Amino acid sequence: MAVNLREPGALAPIAGARWASVDAAIKKPGGDDMALLVLDEGATVAGVFTRNVFAAAPVVLARRHMAAASPRALLINSGNANAGTGRQGEADALVCCRRVADSLGVAAEQVLPFSTGVIGQMLPMSRIEPAIPRLAEAPAEDGWLAAARAIMTTDTVPKGFSRRVELDEGTVTLTGISKGSGMIRPDMATMLAFIATDATVPAADLDAALREAVNASFNSITVDGDTSTNDAAMLCATGAGMAVDRHKPGWAAFVGALRELMADLACAIVRDAEGATRFITLSVDGATSVDEARAVAFTVAHSPLFKTAAFAGDPNWGRILAAVGRAPVADLAIDGVDIALDDVAIVAGGQPRADYREAEAAEVMSRAEFTVHIGLGRGDAGATVWTSDLSYDYVRINAEYRS
Amino acid sequence: MAVNLREPGALAPIAGARWASVDAAIKKPGGDDMALLVLDEGATVAGVFTRNVFAAAPVVLARRHMAAASPRALLINSGNANAGTGRQGEADALVCCRRVADSLGVAAEQVLPFSTGVIGQMLPMSRIEPAIPRLAEAPAEDGWLAAARAIMTTDTVPKGFSRRVELDEGTVTLTGISKGSGMIRPDMATMLAFIATDATVPAADLDAALREAVNASFNSITVDGDTSTNDAAMLCATGAGMAVDRHKPGWAAFVGALRELMADLACAIVRDAEGATRFITLSVDGATSVDEARAVAFTVAHSPLFKTAAFAGDPNWGRILAAVGRAPVADLAIDGVDIALDDVAIVAGGQPRADYREAEAAEVMSRAEFTVHIGLGRGDAGATVWTSDLSYDYVRINAEYRS
Repeated sequence: MAVNLREPGALAPIAGARWASVDAAIKKPGGDDMALLVLDEGATVAGVFTRNVFAAAPVVLARRHMAAASPRALLINSGNANAGTGRQGEADALVCCRRVADSLGVAAEQVLPFSTGVIGQMLPMSRIEPAIPRLAEAPAEDGWLAAARAIMTTDTVPKGFSRRVELDEGTVTLTGISKGSGMIRPDMATMLAFIATDATVPAADLDAALREAVNASFNSITVDGDTSTNDAAMLCATGAGMAVDRHKPGWAAFVGALRELMADLACAIVRDAEGATRFITLSVDGATSVDEARAVAFTVAHSPLFKTAAFAGDPNWGRILAAVGRAPVADLAIDGVDIALDDVAIVAGGQPRADYREAEAAEVMSRAEFTVHIGLGRGDAGATVWTSDLSYDYVRINAEYRS
Repeated sequence: MAVNLREPGALAPIAGARWASVDAAIKKPGGDDMALLVLDEGATVAGVFTRNVFAAAPVVLARRHMAAASPRALLINSGNANAGTGRQGEADALVCCRRVADSLGVAAEQVLPFSTGVIGQMLPMSRIEPAIPRLAEAPAEDGWLAAARAIMTTDTVPKGFSRRVELDEGTVTLTGISKGSGMIRPDMATMLAFIATDATVPAADLDAALREAVNASFNSITVDGDTSTNDAAMLCATGAGMAVDRHKPGWAAFVGALRELMADLACAIVRDAEGATRFITLSVDGATSVDEARAVAFTVAHSPLFKTAAFAGDPNWGRILAAVGRAPVADLAIDGVDIALDDVAIVAGGQPRADYREAEAAEVMSRAEFTVHIGLGRGDAGATVWTSDLSYDYVRINAEYRS
């Protein structure tokens, strides 16, 4: 039951970025489970990958290929994460790249592999290999929504957004898709995002833009604090359109649009989180640094006690206060701490306000979406983090036997 | 439903440590809710307190009094944590100390207050004050079990253990009680432990023994990663018995017995954790330091995905591996990682063993108690951490409205 998340309407095509999707019978209960993104020659690509030191085979290979050549194709399969599969897993991922390269007439190093799904099982190569030439047959610029579906595992809604940025010299278009719903379900390895723009962006600048935007999007969400072995967010600039770089006046607008698009994609994952009944924004200000604000926000976002209170709609400010108090922040003083739920002020200077009425706070927490404002009263920095609640369904989904 | 935890049988009296308990009508559904521990003159006392920077009023006062005088009495109430109560809360805690001091003929600074229960409500002083003279009337050395009951909040079983240490010069006795069951339930502030020995121990040595033992006991358990505002573990040496200090040959045996007693008290809290259906030991070795081993153990112990798999009895080693991989440890290599469940080896060198049979691992995880062995293969240090699973009942208990 995704929280206020609907299937995307039209996703804007990106000139120079073509998708194909097929059903290779990897994923239960069926539907397309392989997708291929083909980029025009001259495209630049930036990527950020899981920080889990046990990165899956495709992540290892994608990193290696990005360092060696200019990517021309991204191959994604769902239903199997090719994680915990050792040397055989790396060999299989490399075979996938070679098959794509053969079909497209590019080098194997120009193909980046991505996998999401069950951990610890070898890729079903006998089904994957024959599917690859089919994928390479007729990729099309209007294939974004089908690709968003093909990369889903336990997602209940395909996730995709488009943005147009009007710059002095013309218009730049961005479209992205993402998948993920909790970090690993029974043993799924989870978060992937693919974004393309028709802008022409130098590789180093594209990388800088992605890293800036990812901090305020995919690195600002949490469902359960677990980090998958397969997480990746990729940004491709096809070069079909106008030039944008960090020295041009439109750069800030471009990065801003990218950040908003990626925040939409990231929040869509939280909205579709396992068992989620609420979408919660944690907004921390008055910190001495962004890192400090993020540390406080994540400590609250990861607190099972806060998350179960959110599920219950219980305005249990003691739990928020206790989580703030154990955040890894030096010399935090309770007298500076303010807490509000949406526009209902609850705690001021570390103590419940005299005018606090629990019924008002309970009304806020009964909403499907609300914001917890936390003021630390010691500086000018802030951060925003998005999370979901902890429900019976989270336990049910994650306690189910693998099937 | 506590996991393999029964009410204590006889708890050994400690000469020079006398308990009284009364029902002051603070706690629902009734039963004793105040306890007083009176120590003979000359006793030494050591304490460790919550690291939550928003320490509750009694914690603030107990720390202050310990720095100022030699404690003669410890006053505990359950049903109300006197946390998040600001200056009024501190004033109330001080009044409690003064009433005890008046009744016993000691100084107020010689009384340490402790509270556990609901956060954010003022102490019901009109019921507490008249109860104090009743407590002071007839404390007795056989009052340990009644005190273990009086300090309970949502605990389902009173927790207490005794140990005798045979030294060359004679016998030392240790008895302790603890309470806690998850960190805050609806909004309970939780963990307390009171231990006494009849040994005569210099204050500095007693403090050192407590700090050493607490790392391998109360600092090695986790239910949900939340730290209460009221946690305290107190160790009293009454001085009625033989002298023990760090220069005597019996010191290691004394500290060892203390560590075992405190581990029993700590594990009893995990066994009685909210919604727990399993008691899980995480044993990490092959680390380069104890801190590193603890970081890995706690990362797994806090993983909601591991905890829900444990609830389901699902030997989902991918979740253990993924949690190890995101532990805050530098340069961890997957090829060194071994994982076993009790005596069933699952992962060797980061990959599933060829002889691994899931049915054998599933049998281990169906047990009420099992050990996850994690080898890092890079050093000689190790650590043990105890935790519980994440069940529907954990969510139910913590999502219930406060009542």
